[in-house]
Amino acid sequence: MDQQRVVIIGAVALGPKVACRLKRLRPDFNVTLVEQGEYISYGGCGIPYYVSGDLSDIKELMSTSFHMERTPEFFEAAKDVRVLTRTRALALNRQAKLVRLRHLDSGQEEDLPYDKLVLATGSRPRRLAVPGGDLPQVLSVANLKDALTIRERISQGQVAKAVIIGAGPLGLEMAEAVSDLWGVEATILEIAPQVLPGVLDPGLARMVSKNLEDHDLTVHLEETVQEIRPAQGGHPLQVVTGKRTLDADLVLTALGVMPNSQLAADAGLTVSPRGAIVVDDRLQTSDLDIYAGGDCIENTHLLTGQPVYFPSGSLANRQGRVIGTNLAGGDATFKGIVGSFTIKIFDLAVAATGLSLTAAQREGLDAISALVIQADRAHFYPGQDLMYLNLVVEKNTRRLLGAQGLGANGDALVGRINSVAALLSQGASLEDLSNLEVAYSPPFASALDIVNAVANTAENILDGYNRTVEVADFERCFLTEQAGDTICLDVRGAQNAAPYVDLFGDRWVNIPQETLKDRFAAIPRDKRLLVLCNSGVRSYEALRQLETAGLGNAVNLQGGVAALKKSGLLQGEEEGKEKD
Amino acid sequence: MDQQRVVIIGAVALGPKVACRLKRLRPDFNVTLVEQGEYISYGGCGIPYYVSGDLSDIKELMSTSFHMERTPEFFEAAKDVRVLTRTRALALNRQAKLVRLRHLDSGQEEDLPYDKLVLATGSRPRRLAVPGGDLPQVLSVANLKDALTIRERISQGQVAKAVIIGAGPLGLEMAEAVSDLWGVEATILEIAPQVLPGVLDPGLARMVSKNLEDHDLTVHLEETVQEIRPAQGGHPLQVVTGKRTLDADLVLTALGVMPNSQLAADAGLTVSPRGAIVVDDRLQTSDLDIYAGGDCIENTHLLTGQPVYFPSGSLANRQGRVIGTNLAGGDATFKGIVGSFTIKIFDLAVAATGLSLTAAQREGLDAISALVIQADRAHFYPGQDLMYLNLVVEKNTRRLLGAQGLGANGDALVGRINSVAALLSQGASLEDLSNLEVAYSPPFASALDIVNAVANTAENILDGYNRTVEVADFERCFLTEQAGDTICLDVRGAQNAAPYVDLFGDRWVNIPQETLKDRFAAIPRDKRLLVLCNSGVRSYEALRQLETAGLGNAVNLQGGVAALKKSGLLQGEEEGKEKD
Repeated sequence: MDQQRVVIIGAVALGPKVACRLKRLRPDFNVTLVEQGEYISYGGCGIPYYVSGDLSDIKELMSTSFHMERTPEFFEAAKDVRVLTRTRALALNRQAKLVRLRHLDSGQEEDLPYDKLVLATGSRPRRLAVPGGDLPQVLSVANLKDALTIRERISQGQVAKAVIIGAGPLGLEMAEAVSDLWGVEATILEIAPQVLPGVLDPGLARMVSKNLEDHDLTVHLEETVQEIRPAQGGHPLQVVTGKRTLDADLVLTALGVMPNSQLAADAGLTVSPRGAIVVDDRLQTSDLDIYAGGDCIENTHLLTGQPVYFPSGSLANRQGRVIGTNLAGGDATFKGIVGSFTIKIFDLAVAATGLSLTAAQREGLDAISALVIQADRAHFYPGQDLMYLNLVVEKNTRRLLGAQGLGANGDALVGRINSVAALLSQGASLEDLSNLEVAYSPPFASALDIVNAVANTAENILDGYNRTVEVADFERCFLTEQAGDTICLDVRGAQNAAPYVDLFGDRWVNIPQETLKDRFAAIPRDKRLLVLCNSGVRSYEALRQLETAGLGNAVNLQGGVAALKKSGLLQGEEEGKEKD
Repeated sequence: MDQQRVVIIGAVALGPKVACRLKRLRPDFNVTLVEQGEYISYGGCGIPYYVSGDLSDIKELMSTSFHMERTPEFFEAAKDVRVLTRTRALALNRQAKLVRLRHLDSGQEEDLPYDKLVLATGSRPRRLAVPGGDLPQVLSVANLKDALTIRERISQGQVAKAVIIGAGPLGLEMAEAVSDLWGVEATILEIAPQVLPGVLDPGLARMVSKNLEDHDLTVHLEETVQEIRPAQGGHPLQVVTGKRTLDADLVLTALGVMPNSQLAADAGLTVSPRGAIVVDDRLQTSDLDIYAGGDCIENTHLLTGQPVYFPSGSLANRQGRVIGTNLAGGDATFKGIVGSFTIKIFDLAVAATGLSLTAAQREGLDAISALVIQADRAHFYPGQDLMYLNLVVEKNTRRLLGAQGLGANGDALVGRINSVAALLSQGASLEDLSNLEVAYSPPFASALDIVNAVANTAENILDGYNRTVEVADFERCFLTEQAGDTICLDVRGAQNAAPYVDLFGDRWVNIPQETLKDRFAAIPRDKRLLVLCNSGVRSYEALRQLETAGLGNAVNLQGGVAALKKSGLLQGEEEGKEKD
């Protein structure tokens, strides 16, 4: 394998990783990175932090951890990798093993020979296919150039109102970026009935929506953009939906991304129906001399065994190493993904791994979900926040399917999600999570950590000990239904319950759990009982007692009053900070 | 199984958990908790935080998360569990199924019948077996009573100087507790040559020692207490070691704990050579009607398959649930432990799971360790700290054996350790960690997370690409050896390297990595080269280049200058905050 020529097309995330790994293992290889853009090896995920002003200089997104700027010159000097920027790969000639390149500045073309080729062509933003979707004030957030444009306009005071189309992760990050420091009035439009569709189940999504609204963002769900039109007067644009017309100085589209696979498809490589390059677990395409990874490929979902498109900068890094190893003659594999995810929105972190209940059910899996709300430290340790963690489990097999959560302490939340991700990658069961030996000390966890607790709750549900309903059921059966068939049994202390007894009268009955066994007679038997406490733990205890006493008409509200408040259905301070 | 009588001996951690779980599943069971102390169901792990003043009221350690005090009366009312405090179990009559009890206040004795028995007898502190070890100013930190005594003495100004014997987790926590807020001058004595022996390898332990000293604690290693004697004058005690005599107003012993198994042993139950009760994976003792869990039992180490004694309040909670389930007729198992651990000392968090390299080698495993130092967020995200993570891997099988780390951001560190713990519990391999799909977003992680990075580094070591040495080697070969056989090759920028070039002269050669390939001729071939950078990443790159150039005399310093500074071997600001 003397002086093997490796050509890598695309130099943002995966491409540079492949090149660096390969050159460390095989310094004798001849490696060329081809990039159609101007910049290479940058942290695209950092764009919202540049737009927000958290980063003062966009060059920080192109630096190493020790502040070396990753220019083409740096790559050539430090890594001995040839870098061609502003150079587009036009076509592959697989028989002759040539890539046809065009140098965008000179217009000149050449054929570059390769022994092995890597496709790191990434993805492009989905376009907004409505009239006016291509107006100059309508931008996506696809690359550093967009980022520069957006920040320039905002910092020059050209943007008072922004409309963000799409309430996925990038949409939410951009909404915060333009509003938090710059004070832009931002409205988010989302076609789905919730924010973060596909990532969170409706219950947690509702809590995220509440948080956005608490930070003065406007969120319109189930709303489709029909047209964007130029306007006279104060704002240059109007965004027309089925329900309203919004003025805007800037429209950002965040509709997700699509794989760039045209080059591969044109060359006859296998591409999936949704347009992603198909690879095996060594990340080789249908042509064994051509590897592909990152945003342009399809992955296997480890929990469903099905193909899935899951673009992620972090994944690109891991896959880049696998390709580098294999190009060097090694035998590394990438078996698939579980779909781990996190974002920070204002003071709230959201994180998830695996399948949500909705996603699991869509895949035909028979699953349940359990919600636990618990302090992120020992309950006696000063300065704690509540963490909200949802677990999804397959019914019959008790296989773990996923976890989603939110909380103010993002590092703690992400840590929990990652520990579940580790178990998911191993096909672990509910019992494995119930017994997972997380490190314990009062400053960092409860003696029974929330990951253990949520596994236990799921087990109690599966075993029929805990019959639960959700916040949405509370809203439907208690708040909106006037028939009065459902009453709330609040098993907390009188001080906690008092405001709701005042508000709801005899539909909100307060019997503290520790007095319950002497007061069964006071409980109506002809109504459906929604048992609740602060978080769902004492109410579970009460539910067990009620069942023993023959009161089979009770269900437990998962997450209790804490979940209701976090969802905006009840007013008041966050639970856990109240005394009783 | 009508009205089964279950007696649980011990009501601190495991006992109450068994009782609560069991009563929720089988409210018809008759459950009695027997406790020789005055208090029940308290968070013993919180004692240092009460002593330190972080908690104002010791009752907070006995409260539920929602501020209900877990008194015997609360237990009886809320849980329908009978609680006998100040009651000692004297003996078991396994044939007649009776527990002989003595009520300590009245002196009366009775036989309590049981159908099933649970031993939750916990542990007791190891005594300091030297003359004066039983003087009244010599205290352990075993229970709430000790905690009250210690805090009372300190808060009344009776303690200016304290000596803490034992630099295990509790010793370090107590040293902080007495010194931080109260300003007590504290000295730690440890018989081993490092702090946290058995938990951390010497390299990380040295960084912890440095941190303790930075907080004005004195640490004396390899020092054995020979005597404690009453003294005249200012301080009532003198602690005499082989090397010095220390004045003290208070001596705290933190020498670890021993299982309380006398009751079990007297009744003929199987007890291990080191005195812990032996149980199967359903947590049944050699008498199937008697269960045991928590600090009084021996566990199986999942990584060695060997018995291990690993007392932990968190483990007690998880085991309590297993016993509760099994008593109720279920079939839960507890397969073993991996040994997860964390503490916070001042502004530094330390966490570990699995085996350290020392522990692995003691078990006869052929293992290596890799160290990575990396920011806890994306390098461009504002406000980051360095995290130090060590990974231990078995050589031939590439099985993960353990991880240990430290850092200012404890939640982030514990999250990483927990994700490794999850993989350890599943017998996972290095490749599983290399590809572990941690959730990524710039506020919470780097695109290539530290857990992936440390797995990659370990792989590079195993594959022979990265030849590493440790901080201790730097000290031995470079700092203390005067022969000059070893020189440092600093591959960072000139600005970073300058102070060391000034200090060490021609023994510290600076060639920035990106210029290395043109300057091989400047590198001495007759010396051993210690290649170093800020953290070990650029120096690895350089090592690969040197090897290609035929300079086989180079090794890479793991952790680089960041590790040297954190260990106190070089002066200067923490790396990663410097620009170059």
